[in-house]
Amino acid sequence: MNTYTIDAGGRDATGAQRGRGPNPQTGPFYIEGAEPGDTLVVHLLRLETNRSTGYSGSLLAPYSVDPGFLRTEALREAKQLTWQIDKQKGVATLEPGDYKGPRLELPLHPMLGCIGTAPANNAAIPTSYPDNFGGNMDYNGMGEGVTVMLPVFEPGALLFLGDGHARQGDGEVTGGAIETSLDVDFSVDLIKKKRIDWPRLENSDFIMVLGSSRAINEAMQHATTELMRWLMADYGFDERGASLLLGLRIR
Amino acid sequence: MNTYTIDAGGRDATGAQRGRGPNPQTGPFYIEGAEPGDTLVVHLLRLETNRSTGYSGSLLAPYSVDPGFLRTEALREAKQLTWQIDKQKGVATLEPGDYKGPRLELPLHPMLGCIGTAPANNAAIPTSYPDNFGGNMDYNGMGEGVTVMLPVFEPGALLFLGDGHARQGDGEVTGGAIETSLDVDFSVDLIKKKRIDWPRLENSDFIMVLGSSRAINEAMQHATTELMRWLMADYGFDERGASLLLGLRIR
Amino acid sequence: MNTYTIDAGGRDATGAQRGRGPNPQTGPFYIEGAEPGDTLVVHLLRLETNRSTGYSGSLLAPYSVDPGFLRTEALREAKQLTWQIDKQKGVATLEPGDYKGPRLELPLHPMLGCIGTAPANNAAIPTSYPDNFGGNMDYNGMGEGVTVMLPVFEPGALLFLGDGHARQGDGEVTGGAIETSLDVDFSVDLIKKKRIDWPRLENSDFIMVLGSSRAINEAMQHATTELMRWLMADYGFDERGASLLLGLRIR
Amino acid sequence: MNTYTIDAGGRDATGAQRGRGPNPQTGPFYIEGAEPGDTLVVHLLRLETNRSTGYSGSLLAPYSVDPGFLRTEALREAKQLTWQIDKQKGVATLEPGDYKGPRLELPLHPMLGCIGTAPANNAAIPTSYPDNFGGNMDYNGMGEGVTVMLPVFEPGALLFLGDGHARQGDGEVTGGAIETSLDVDFSVDLIKKKRIDWPRLENSDFIMVLGSSRAINEAMQHATTELMRWLMADYGFDERGASLLLGLRIR
Repeated sequence: MNTYTIDAGGRDATGAQRGRGPNPQTGPFYIEGAEPGDTLVVHLLRLETNRSTGYSGSLLAPYSVDPGFLRTEALREAKQLTWQIDKQKGVATLEPGDYKGPRLELPLHPMLGCIGTAPANNAAIPTSYPDNFGGNMDYNGMGEGVTVMLPVFEPGALLFLGDGHARQGDGEVTGGAIETSLDVDFSVDLIKKKRIDWPRLENSDFIMVLGSSRAINEAMQHATTELMRWLMADYGFDERGASLLLGLRIR
Repeated sequence: MNTYTIDAGGRDATGAQRGRGPNPQTGPFYIEGAEPGDTLVVHLLRLETNRSTGYSGSLLAPYSVDPGFLRTEALREAKQLTWQIDKQKGVATLEPGDYKGPRLELPLHPMLGCIGTAPANNAAIPTSYPDNFGGNMDYNGMGEGVTVMLPVFEPGALLFLGDGHARQGDGEVTGGAIETSLDVDFSVDLIKKKRIDWPRLENSDFIMVLGSSRAINEAMQHATTELMRWLMADYGFDERGASLLLGLRIR
Repeated sequence: MNTYTIDAGGRDATGAQRGRGPNPQTGPFYIEGAEPGDTLVVHLLRLETNRSTGYSGSLLAPYSVDPGFLRTEALREAKQLTWQIDKQKGVATLEPGDYKGPRLELPLHPMLGCIGTAPANNAAIPTSYPDNFGGNMDYNGMGEGVTVMLPVFEPGALLFLGDGHARQGDGEVTGGAIETSLDVDFSVDLIKKKRIDWPRLENSDFIMVLGSSRAINEAMQHATTELMRWLMADYGFDERGASLLLGLRIR
Repeated sequence: MNTYTIDAGGRDATGAQRGRGPNPQTGPFYIEGAEPGDTLVVHLLRLETNRSTGYSGSLLAPYSVDPGFLRTEALREAKQLTWQIDKQKGVATLEPGDYKGPRLELPLHPMLGCIGTAPANNAAIPTSYPDNFGGNMDYNGMGEGVTVMLPVFEPGALLFLGDGHARQGDGEVTGGAIETSLDVDFSVDLIKKKRIDWPRLENSDFIMVLGSSRAINEAMQHATTELMRWLMADYGFDERGASLLLGLRIR
């Protein structure tokens, strides 16, 4: 499937306004044969930026900085800045001016901030939320070459994707990345009658789980528990063996 | 300085009981000239395991697994298991038996679970706690080749180290690692009249900050804020530039 | 308006199954004239139990007990128990048998676990969630005589209510209460062009705000901030005065 | 025992500087016969303010307000304000001027911000921390008439008290209260060979537990678990019965 995403503010490759922010999605894609209790497998085959600019905020998100710093010292205006994207050279650049410091020239690493299936129980969850169905996870490993497994809650799975980033650090601590539109090629597989509880990822080096919660400790608990279940179901470990691997092997 | 650490339970290279757990420390080392408001710089030059066994727990720590799983399904007994350490081959191995699954043979990557200076205000904090002075941070990058910067709160800094691990995953989700005794070579420098708020690390690829709190969101806030201050003080950025880099560059 | 709620599992006053759990709602009530940016005021005039039984769980919810206790000691089966409701005597009673200990005879204090308007952005949020629109807040002060203010996000406000409890402790630490069906009388007012950010309550003694988040510290932050704004907007305080009152006066 | 506490900044009834902040303590009191594993019972018989002024901050503590509000709008200077204490009339008063709003005249309700025994393992914990030994819990029910039970970790228990407040709201959301010096009468009992894990309180209406952690969800878990254990040990309940009471009875 060849498709594209518009940016988090709703603009496409030509800069035209095509949707309403935050994070308007491309989709839903109805996957033939997908039924509740299956697992949808999405292969992200190609992600490329498709225009010459992106934008980002320029301050740490309020929740990711010491409250005492916010109270007494922090800048107050989270100005939006425009990055130049040079696809030939594979970099995004920003000149000092709005900020003080060296010129920033960062390698492109296109990724999807959002990818998910329709939530359970006919819920319609805002596209700024992550949960067990995926959604706005903002993980910088959600790029070309990764395989994503998502639980299916509705007939046809109803796959959505959006919120393209030209690149992002770990954790989206500024509450955004270099927001831009992307060309996306993907293919899907279906694992029938296999239930997973959280999005699972594989790349050439790792198997991963993305747990999500407003409470970070819960996100961690979801991820470790799902990884443990995965190791137990598919890799021949019992709870003790899976726990040993989680505690000692990662990386 | 050539020294060694005993393991988290207090045993040395010969297996002899030399201290009381948890995490008995080597030290304090009094650093000539160190005064409150300075920064102590520790270079970890060499870390090597020095005996043929280590031990680990075998279940996820209660705080790192879904409470619902604990309530309904989890194993109840966190058995301690013994690993064989083969320094020639550079691996630690564990045979199935106490757990079910493949034999585990994992590369050695010796690291210190604890390193820290004396806390402020004459406090005597248990060696199972981390805080702004360092302490029990259990970070698996605290190994050979890393440079650690620690705030100095007391004359002489009073450096402690201990809780050696033959290797550990990310995050010590089992509440322990492969616990063993280590040989440790380190050297120190002093940066006079330079105040830092949290432990800072450098290796050949990264600069890092270790923020700590029982509340994970606070640990993240401490780390991002200190990194921002570091980028502002030493790398020519203002708050906006440092925030951009934190949001977009990491890795 | 005279209406009623079915219980959290979907049964009505006669015990007939009328909806699907969890927390099927009565509504929506379309409020004439309500528009986004208004505040809906709901007066809970009368709440009464309307059948002779209710049910409850019988163990602390997994998230409200020490993980170490869950790991090593906790009972595994959260049995559902049936309470007798005697409206004449005004008590709910449970006999020992399924549990060990004195007979429990507790005063009835009927309350709504859920009350809310339609969420913003056409979202359809599960009835087990609380948020800025209200929803499943499970506050035991949501009973007869209280006035509830809710933000209006959609034309007509679309008021829902449900999840009746014959009584509940503070915080729903067992993840449920004495679940039963209720008769409910309420009336509504509308405050045009008044925006509030979180549900506000008034009874004869207090003004209150219900902040919600999976992260408890955020729930607290939402509540204190909204109370501060309320004191500033309606009671003549500036930020400093409102903060003083919040810090020193409560109760 | 008749004694007194100096205020959180170290001043006594005459305004003389007698200790160094924060929260200099009165003590330790060596309790004859107290040994590790016992429970120390402290009866707070009388608490009275003993001077004509107290001081307070005037802004919400950074951790208790929405980060977004701090980022964009909040006042930056947490001015310290002086309250007049009129013991005859039983009120503390503050005139507008430094803040905007009505004059504040609040009933005195003297309480101890800190009370605790020596921590386990010879630790010396700063007097701004709470933990299982008590310490800086800042609970506004720690006033005249309450009975406090504390675990004993060291011979003689080593009781400390301090951080007197003329009154305080729920939760010390401003990070302080009306700080002043107090006269304190108390008596002690000892329960031999009775181990408790967290401070327990009794007044004429309630039994209570004070759980503490930087992570609020953990504080709640500590408190519910200890209350459950208490109900099981002393009131004839099993886990199920104690859980029912915690979920349904409180208040």
